Amino acid sequence: MKVRKNRRSAPKNAFYAQSGGVSAVINASACGVLETARRHRDKIARVYAGRHGIIGALTEDLIDTSRESAATIRGLRHTPGGAFGSARYKLAAIDENRARYERLIEVFRAHDIGYFFYNGGNDSMDTAQKVSEFGASLGHSLVCIGIPKTVDNDLAVTDCCPGFGSAAKYIAVSTREAALDVISMARTSTKVFVLEVMGRHAGWLAAAAGLAGEKPGDAPHAILFPEIVFEREKFLARVKTYVERYGYCVVVVSEGVRDAAGRFLAEAGTRDAFGHSQLGGVGPVVAQMTRDALGYKFHWAVADYLQRSARHIASQVDVEQAYAVGAAAVEFAVQGKTAVMPIIVRKSAKPYRWSIGEAPLGKIANAERKVPRSFITADGFGITAACRSYLSPLIGGEAYPPYRNGLPDYVRIKGIGVPRRLREPFVV
Amino acid sequence: MKVRKNRRSAPKNAFYAQSGGVSAVINASACGVLETARRHRDKIARVYAGRHGIIGALTEDLIDTSRESAATIRGLRHTPGGAFGSARYKLAAIDENRARYERLIEVFRAHDIGYFFYNGGNDSMDTAQKVSEFGASLGHSLVCIGIPKTVDNDLAVTDCCPGFGSAAKYIAVSTREAALDVISMARTSTKVFVLEVMGRHAGWLAAAAGLAGEKPGDAPHAILFPEIVFEREKFLARVKTYVERYGYCVVVVSEGVRDAAGRFLAEAGTRDAFGHSQLGGVGPVVAQMTRDALGYKFHWAVADYLQRSARHIASQVDVEQAYAVGAAAVEFAVQGKTAVMPIIVRKSAKPYRWSIGEAPLGKIANAERKVPRSFITADGFGITAACRSYLSPLIGGEAYPPYRNGLPDYVRIKGIGVPRRLREPFVV
Repeated sequence: MKVRKNRRSAPKNAFYAQSGGVSAVINASACGVLETARRHRDKIARVYAGRHGIIGALTEDLIDTSRESAATIRGLRHTPGGAFGSARYKLAAIDENRARYERLIEVFRAHDIGYFFYNGGNDSMDTAQKVSEFGASLGHSLVCIGIPKTVDNDLAVTDCCPGFGSAAKYIAVSTREAALDVISMARTSTKVFVLEVMGRHAGWLAAAAGLAGEKPGDAPHAILFPEIVFEREKFLARVKTYVERYGYCVVVVSEGVRDAAGRFLAEAGTRDAFGHSQLGGVGPVVAQMTRDALGYKFHWAVADYLQRSARHIASQVDVEQAYAVGAAAVEFAVQGKTAVMPIIVRKSAKPYRWSIGEAPLGKIANAERKVPRSFITADGFGITAACRSYLSPLIGGEAYPPYRNGLPDYVRIKGIGVPRRLREPFVV
Repeated sequence: MKVRKNRRSAPKNAFYAQSGGVSAVINASACGVLETARRHRDKIARVYAGRHGIIGALTEDLIDTSRESAATIRGLRHTPGGAFGSARYKLAAIDENRARYERLIEVFRAHDIGYFFYNGGNDSMDTAQKVSEFGASLGHSLVCIGIPKTVDNDLAVTDCCPGFGSAAKYIAVSTREAALDVISMARTSTKVFVLEVMGRHAGWLAAAAGLAGEKPGDAPHAILFPEIVFEREKFLARVKTYVERYGYCVVVVSEGVRDAAGRFLAEAGTRDAFGHSQLGGVGPVVAQMTRDALGYKFHWAVADYLQRSARHIASQVDVEQAYAVGAAAVEFAVQGKTAVMPIIVRKSAKPYRWSIGEAPLGKIANAERKVPRSFITADGFGITAACRSYLSPLIGGEAYPPYRNGLPDYVRIKGIGVPRRLREPFVV
């Protein structure tokens, strides 16, 4: 990482963009960025946000956040989704798509943008890293700071990822609640309940369901991790054991579960903009399997976007960390740091204490952290004490949003655009 | 309804049973019954709860609630599911299954049970009514009080049904949150999001999603009600309009939606204990339809049991009403009333004021209240102002449960059984 000399010079504008799948707290990071930038007007003039993320930069569709009230900015802390619009859009390698990088720098120059804050997952950290290098190669002095975000919790180096704790809390709470429903009815109704959760390659969200159970026999009774090869007979035996012993069985299945041949149990057969296959529907597949083989009445739920937008049950720790990484990103920038990302450092598990550290973008880009084998029980269906001790603090505390008419009072930005300065449009 | 003379006599025991699908607040009704009964020890000696509802009475599997601490009873107010176990089990007509009714009275006699509190939907009110008549015909003096419960909100006479408000709040909140996620990403990702909710014949839960939208263009953009015949072309045109105008479309579909031929859009092909067909899966069917016809990228979620067990986001009004009908049931009983059910009476919509009334069981049994046509917009896809004004107060207030380790601290009963007094077992 490079530290530039902290010269006295005219303040530059900043560009902030949200990237990839949004979360319940990505706007809390935006809030951290914007509130902190407003305290550094000597270095950062205005923060422009990309409408739909990096696409907003390429198409010169910039939102002037200085036109948003302090109340709106503050309200972002309790508002889920991506307030400025996010995008699944990868810039690809510089050699392959030099025009995009050139355009980006052109827009940044036109709007006197000297800071680039990119709020996303590992794809985005890769992009931020490349933009940083490319800007330098063109002689455009650009501070590039990554801000971690992903409900998947799969970023390297950082202890955890903002967005994960809230989705994890939603899943653990939902599993506990649904299990109470199922056990009530199991005598005459549903015996097997399957909850499908996100997690394409890493089973962190599925693992979080394990927090719902605290005593022997508690749900969930089988967690299906993408890290563990799915074995039909072993799974069915597990379900049978629990139904016979406790009268019911709650299964939590990650969308990314694969069989021994590496095939996803459910393939929608489509691919997203990053070339990842689009999943969904493994819940009903697994549920039907138990009925076909064992004859049990089943129900299934697919949480889908509900799990990553459930700001109403956000983790207080997660909200605070999301805000803190946004704020730290700005502090790093005004200190002259570049090509770095603030990370969460765990100082103590019990009592839980954390602080903000920093890591070079290159260490995070495209690395993927899976659930370690030591966090999964020997049988492959549960979480170990070590996993529980890692996960438990991340769902700590309730950060309830304000309510109006019985519903969360989420804010909306005005979204006033910055006048365009370039003649040429750019088609993405 | 009959009012018995309020004689001074030895207190009798009471039997309480939960019936049918459980809810986030059915235990709040149980709490109301138990706490109120404990204040009337001169009339009600002990309350026995049926383990798995009415099955517990038939099999003489009674839980002695007097063995539960005051703290546990109090904790039922914030615990979802059916703490004593519920059942989908219909007694059928007396002529068809006289043995069951005889057994019930035999168990009641053996345990000196003079009060029967049945907490359920319209099937259960029918049962309570029959048991009342049958007991009288055998000369067993039995006070039968129904306690309304159903997330479907389809009971007649009462203004609303305990359990509905909390599920409605969950759906409205989830719709609002998921919509913020979808709109963030719509530029490059999902254009159509479908949320499937419960409601076999009545679209009250689907209607509740409509509360999420307050301004033109707000989600949900299409609600599919069981009360409105599904027309494919009309639906697809609606989706197309919203995607073209706003960039995305949020659809909320009731599991009970049918086509012009009366066929469910999704049939699991199985039937529950009441002979109702088991539904589930219309969400993906509808989502896939928009892709096939319009080419839009879609996502879908199926809330299933999550919606009716989500005590973490329960409506304060719903919790209070659930408790109140439980408490009122006991008050009615000790006043000597029988074959009645406490109902919710709306005294004013704005500000919302309600009170407890009473209705004879016969008026509620087997009647089903659907969403009136005047509550659905002319196009069939939204809710009217009248509907909003009816629904809005029911999701009012947040009744958060206590938390421990980041998770709701729900109570569990000890569930100590009452010693059996009958020799003959009964096989259900």
